[in-house]
Amino acid sequence: MSEELTGNILIVQDGEPTPTVNSTLAGAVTEALNHDCIEEIYGGLNGLRGLMNEDIIDLAEESQQVIRGLRVTPGAALGISRGSVRRPEELERVLAVLEAHNVRFFLLIGDRETLEAGARLSELAEAKGVSLRVIGLPKSLTNELSLTDHCPGYGSVVKQIASTVKELAVDACCQGNHDLVSILEVGGGHTGWLAAASSLAKRRNEPSDPPHLILMPEVAFSADAFVEQVSNVLKTHTYCQIVVGQGLVDSDGNYLATSIPAEMASLPNISSPSLFLRQLLEQHLAVKVQCSVLGATQRCGARAASQADSNEAFLCGQAAVEAVVDGQSGKVITLSRGDTDTYSCETGLASLADIADSTKAFPANWINEDGLSISYQYYKYASPLAAGEVSVPYENGTPVFFALAANRVDKHLEAYSMA
Amino acid sequence: MSEELTGNILIVQDGEPTPTVNSTLAGAVTEALNHDCIEEIYGGLNGLRGLMNEDIIDLAEESQQVIRGLRVTPGAALGISRGSVRRPEELERVLAVLEAHNVRFFLLIGDRETLEAGARLSELAEAKGVSLRVIGLPKSLTNELSLTDHCPGYGSVVKQIASTVKELAVDACCQGNHDLVSILEVGGGHTGWLAAASSLAKRRNEPSDPPHLILMPEVAFSADAFVEQVSNVLKTHTYCQIVVGQGLVDSDGNYLATSIPAEMASLPNISSPSLFLRQLLEQHLAVKVQCSVLGATQRCGARAASQADSNEAFLCGQAAVEAVVDGQSGKVITLSRGDTDTYSCETGLASLADIADSTKAFPANWINEDGLSISYQYYKYASPLAAGEVSVPYENGTPVFFALAANRVDKHLEAYSMA
Repeated sequence: MSEELTGNILIVQDGEPTPTVNSTLAGAVTEALNHDCIEEIYGGLNGLRGLMNEDIIDLAEESQQVIRGLRVTPGAALGISRGSVRRPEELERVLAVLEAHNVRFFLLIGDRETLEAGARLSELAEAKGVSLRVIGLPKSLTNELSLTDHCPGYGSVVKQIASTVKELAVDACCQGNHDLVSILEVGGGHTGWLAAASSLAKRRNEPSDPPHLILMPEVAFSADAFVEQVSNVLKTHTYCQIVVGQGLVDSDGNYLATSIPAEMASLPNISSPSLFLRQLLEQHLAVKVQCSVLGATQRCGARAASQADSNEAFLCGQAAVEAVVDGQSGKVITLSRGDTDTYSCETGLASLADIADSTKAFPANWINEDGLSISYQYYKYASPLAAGEVSVPYENGTPVFFALAANRVDKHLEAYSMA
Repeated sequence: MSEELTGNILIVQDGEPTPTVNSTLAGAVTEALNHDCIEEIYGGLNGLRGLMNEDIIDLAEESQQVIRGLRVTPGAALGISRGSVRRPEELERVLAVLEAHNVRFFLLIGDRETLEAGARLSELAEAKGVSLRVIGLPKSLTNELSLTDHCPGYGSVVKQIASTVKELAVDACCQGNHDLVSILEVGGGHTGWLAAASSLAKRRNEPSDPPHLILMPEVAFSADAFVEQVSNVLKTHTYCQIVVGQGLVDSDGNYLATSIPAEMASLPNISSPSLFLRQLLEQHLAVKVQCSVLGATQRCGARAASQADSNEAFLCGQAAVEAVVDGQSGKVITLSRGDTDTYSCETGLASLADIADSTKAFPANWINEDGLSISYQYYKYASPLAAGEVSVPYENGTPVFFALAANRVDKHLEAYSMA
């Protein structure tokens, strides 16, 4: 057994929000109340950089209604930082703030960059002989960590994208006359984890169900082949439903935006490939093209969140508190699925130090040979993550989201001047 | 009482779909089964132009499960046409098809153009002494008919837009540091009915709630004033949530797209004002701008549909059958609200012939003096329309939508060659 440790817990959120990152916070707060060795339950405002400012609130004072409401509230209730905490003096400052508030248990909910900072803080505390246990909690819309079977947050956006494709396809179906193309642009950076999600809109054994073409950033784009593929789909279908990942590149690795006139290329929006595809199709085929761009609605689509994802995100928060109380440190909470055909999932632990090397590429053998569709292996992987619908409270026709009362804890240190 | 009439009923859908236009179809089919004077229940495929091809299906053969499922299925289950039916020979052909199938009751679910064709058909039948009763059923995402208090379809998109703004605002709130702008672009053409919908995201008596700026097509856009307005919002708020209607114009009535280089102006996507606004803000203020474009997801957002809208759309379908059986013709079904503080709504009838002159502008006095926010009068008008959440069935994490079996009725006429 580990040495007994008593003190305060502090939780921060950082990195791009997901629809369920607040569910993890709710899980941690809920579990923290169960342990006598935890005295105060603190939250750090505005991520790791905010913590350098000693912007700390008392989470135990929050109402039960708010903590419960966080389970279906998008965004990050504690706020996040922009910019990272990397430099030695920054890490020292964070450690000093934690020490000043007798924080012995430190939970970081975030993306890889956040968790890397957590790994360094854990090392620094050990080197300095500071009694601090650090546990990281991954969250990622784009499923980018390989240490875990999947990342909390991913299941919800899978559900949202696949459901949106079903809606768009029904819409296009009633208008098409072998001449309608409907494009949905999704995020996901260099990987097709989000574009692939659209394949869940297909029924099993119905390969001709929409989406008809999934353009993955992993597959080099060829304009000639694409025009022909669309044309072929329109020969047999009244419309063509396309899903494109934002990071689509040609065979030289260039984003398609580079084909846009130079004076427009400086516009960030123009990096949107749907505009490029639309132009291409309208130039080469007599078709009508309609585009939708999910944009930021992807990462805050709380109404479309998956119940499985929300539950697992909450479970991760609970597991982190159990681990840290149990003497674990320098670890990250992972999710692993059971071996049976029926999906089951439990939490585990991996080393925070391994985060830096952890990138989960979309498996090449899950992309079918045509380069435009996704295999059943992916369906088996992703569909349990998108299972179940959350119940969001409504008032006057719109969803009710919750914000923390955020009562500040007194500062103990001199103000820190950030570079 | 009107003369007894016995024969078949035929229903067509036309014009851009809404999330609830199939609910109207379900209401009509359900009610048609109750009347002995109605023999066959037919559907015309692909709108009025499809009807010219005699593409008719038997709706009474459809399973109850499918008809019930239509109440939450987006798109238009019967399909719509592109292009209108206006010329005398086209109207004659539609009438000939209806006669050939002993159709005595004809329901058109559609937008103004569809209903105008219905008015002409009604006149033509009367002039020719053909015994045909015609009833129109309005549906409109953009609430564009003045004959009715509101159009079926509008309430659902109001709910979706206001809910999306709440999600986006929570997302922006946790990242903003007085330097983040989040833009949501919505449709609506020349009127701000859809942009105004976003004002329902504000709580009453909380004027500083998002959205902070609503850019209505009715208010001439000034770039200088806009940059200053955003700057002012960012002085007091950590982020600025903007909603912009697609049809935004400057004081000369030009779409903002015209400021885009000529070689890009031909691209339809570029008529998107969010791109323009983003460029403008990034040039003049040190801010980060994120954009989302609802696009076609607006009109097929079945998961976000309003229960009130879905119920009223169904009710309109029922009312149309009751009216046509009762001897009415040349009429359009309207919705009118009760006088009391508690919202109530019933159907009524107006003349189809008045459709051509019917355009419902957004009331000028519902736009506040600042030109950037919407008055409480609108809130009272729109919030009951967005009330209640529909229950969509799910399977494997994604919604289940229904398609008609669509069993064809034999053709009786020679093929028609369309111009």
